[in-house]
Amino acid sequence: MRSLLERLFLPAFANQWLDARHDSAVMRIGAERIAFTTDTYVVSPLFFPGGDIGKLAVFGTVNDLAMAGARPLYLSAGFILEEGLPLAMLEIIVASMREAAAAAGVELVTGDTKVVDRGKGDAVFINTAGIGAAADVEISPRRVQPGDVIILSGDVGRHGIAIMSVRKGLSFETALESDCAPLWQPVSALLQKGVDVHCMRDLTRGGLASALNEIALDAGVAIAIDESAVAVCEPVAAACELLGLDPLYVANEGRFVAFVTAEHADRALDVLSGCTVSAQPRVIGTVGARGDAIVEALGALGNPRILDLLSGEQLPRIC
Amino acid sequence: MRSLLERLFLPAFANQWLDARHDSAVMRIGAERIAFTTDTYVVSPLFFPGGDIGKLAVFGTVNDLAMAGARPLYLSAGFILEEGLPLAMLEIIVASMREAAAAAGVELVTGDTKVVDRGKGDAVFINTAGIGAAADVEISPRRVQPGDVIILSGDVGRHGIAIMSVRKGLSFETALESDCAPLWQPVSALLQKGVDVHCMRDLTRGGLASALNEIALDAGVAIAIDESAVAVCEPVAAACELLGLDPLYVANEGRFVAFVTAEHADRALDVLSGCTVSAQPRVIGTVGARGDAIVEALGALGNPRILDLLSGEQLPRIC
Repeated sequence: MRSLLERLFLPAFANQWLDARHDSAVMRIGAERIAFTTDTYVVSPLFFPGGDIGKLAVFGTVNDLAMAGARPLYLSAGFILEEGLPLAMLEIIVASMREAAAAAGVELVTGDTKVVDRGKGDAVFINTAGIGAAADVEISPRRVQPGDVIILSGDVGRHGIAIMSVRKGLSFETALESDCAPLWQPVSALLQKGVDVHCMRDLTRGGLASALNEIALDAGVAIAIDESAVAVCEPVAAACELLGLDPLYVANEGRFVAFVTAEHADRALDVLSGCTVSAQPRVIGTVGARGDAIVEALGALGNPRILDLLSGEQLPRIC
Repeated sequence: MRSLLERLFLPAFANQWLDARHDSAVMRIGAERIAFTTDTYVVSPLFFPGGDIGKLAVFGTVNDLAMAGARPLYLSAGFILEEGLPLAMLEIIVASMREAAAAAGVELVTGDTKVVDRGKGDAVFINTAGIGAAADVEISPRRVQPGDVIILSGDVGRHGIAIMSVRKGLSFETALESDCAPLWQPVSALLQKGVDVHCMRDLTRGGLASALNEIALDAGVAIAIDESAVAVCEPVAAACELLGLDPLYVANEGRFVAFVTAEHADRALDVLSGCTVSAQPRVIGTVGARGDAIVEALGALGNPRILDLLSGEQLPRIC
């Protein structure tokens, strides 16, 4: 995906917004700063523990706005339905979207539906685009500075493993659900409390390791994290061992990293702790020198390893 | 589609923007009036005389903004690629989108790409959402008034027949190309010249007859048109006869109807004549009484017929 972006899309549409390489584009329209983003959801299966494609399509896009420091306001929805899709299934998905939109405080204001012949789609694909009101402060990879502290909002890997558990027929002693959740509340709290947030990124496909790699590349900095500070719940850890997956690369849908100045790290932890969706934040690392965009993880025994950018998707159709 | 909208989507997300049932939602954000719209493109074949899915994905969404009286500014693009799609084909489509965006004066500022397994998609699907700066005047079905004059911007049916000609292997003595084109220029000219435009609608899938039916239903008025005033070029007329299609229902991608006050009809014709994309505008009918939402066409011999809302799609995957 990244190479497609670098080789094809960025050169074709070169502009300041794509160059910023952030989850949302932020533009000035008249007197307002507007954030704009889009994501297409092709998750398989459509229903999984803790969510479904409808919920994902709302929260995923809302979160991309939040990561740019923008209050999510309006969503569009574009459906591609495969001929033969039971209407009852679509009704459940739409009800889930409505509930998610209400929870995230956004209005779905415009939509489109296309039907494709059987065998040319896969039940339902959903695209959502979102508009948000951006705070008057830039939050993006280019503001990342050496010395910034990296805070992770919670444990990792729940979404990816929840999906894999359905695909592989795994069951766990303790119920495991996707972490799929809207993230504007903690972001809004950080901004209101005056935390100097340089960058944020939600951890979606590719997980924590990919998000850190993207930011390291786009900011042109080294990043070092302490792997033992990254929380992984027991069922995720067990499933990762069983399936041969690295939890740092497994998808999330309700977790994010925030890059803040060292002076503001304690305040940020305080603020995040007060929000349900980020109740167990941890400092997991710091930004090193400018130059090589490398992400290094220090293991429990003090052994370092490089977290590479994966060349393919570890888990296809996870969102 | 309309019944899906009425039964499923509108009740689920009931709000003033969906209730307006227009091509774009227009919201106030701070001091600005912002138009927002989305469309997904699943056209088959991907390449056709006069265009391709990329060009369609840009102009289609730009036109939905224009129809709300909004200057198109920014686009998002969400791609669903089927595994095995040749990169060279994607490059051609992206180049076409770039060219179309430049022609329409919009910036593509945010995007997303998903890959689905072979047999779960169809080469490429593209969703675009668009943001525009809306004029400070409402242009929507609810402003349609008895007595309004209906102006059609050009001849009908070129896009649908261009697509069908590829599917059915038809060839014509004179080259027939899709009418696919951006429509902001004539809309902008109408607004600048102070024409009191009540409503506009571009004629996409379902053609002129469907657009008029939608507006009649949403405005709660009768509409009468003079069928002989609707221009149909010779190859489109011939193909329609051969294929058993009614040109009034065949898709267009660069034609629109404008509902204007009777006093402003001549000025509107003047303005539209001056724009390449609407160089041959014609008054085709008028809005009748409030009450029954019926669309009647008077034939060349004075014989009236009702233009019904089609229950299915006459031509699937036309856009």
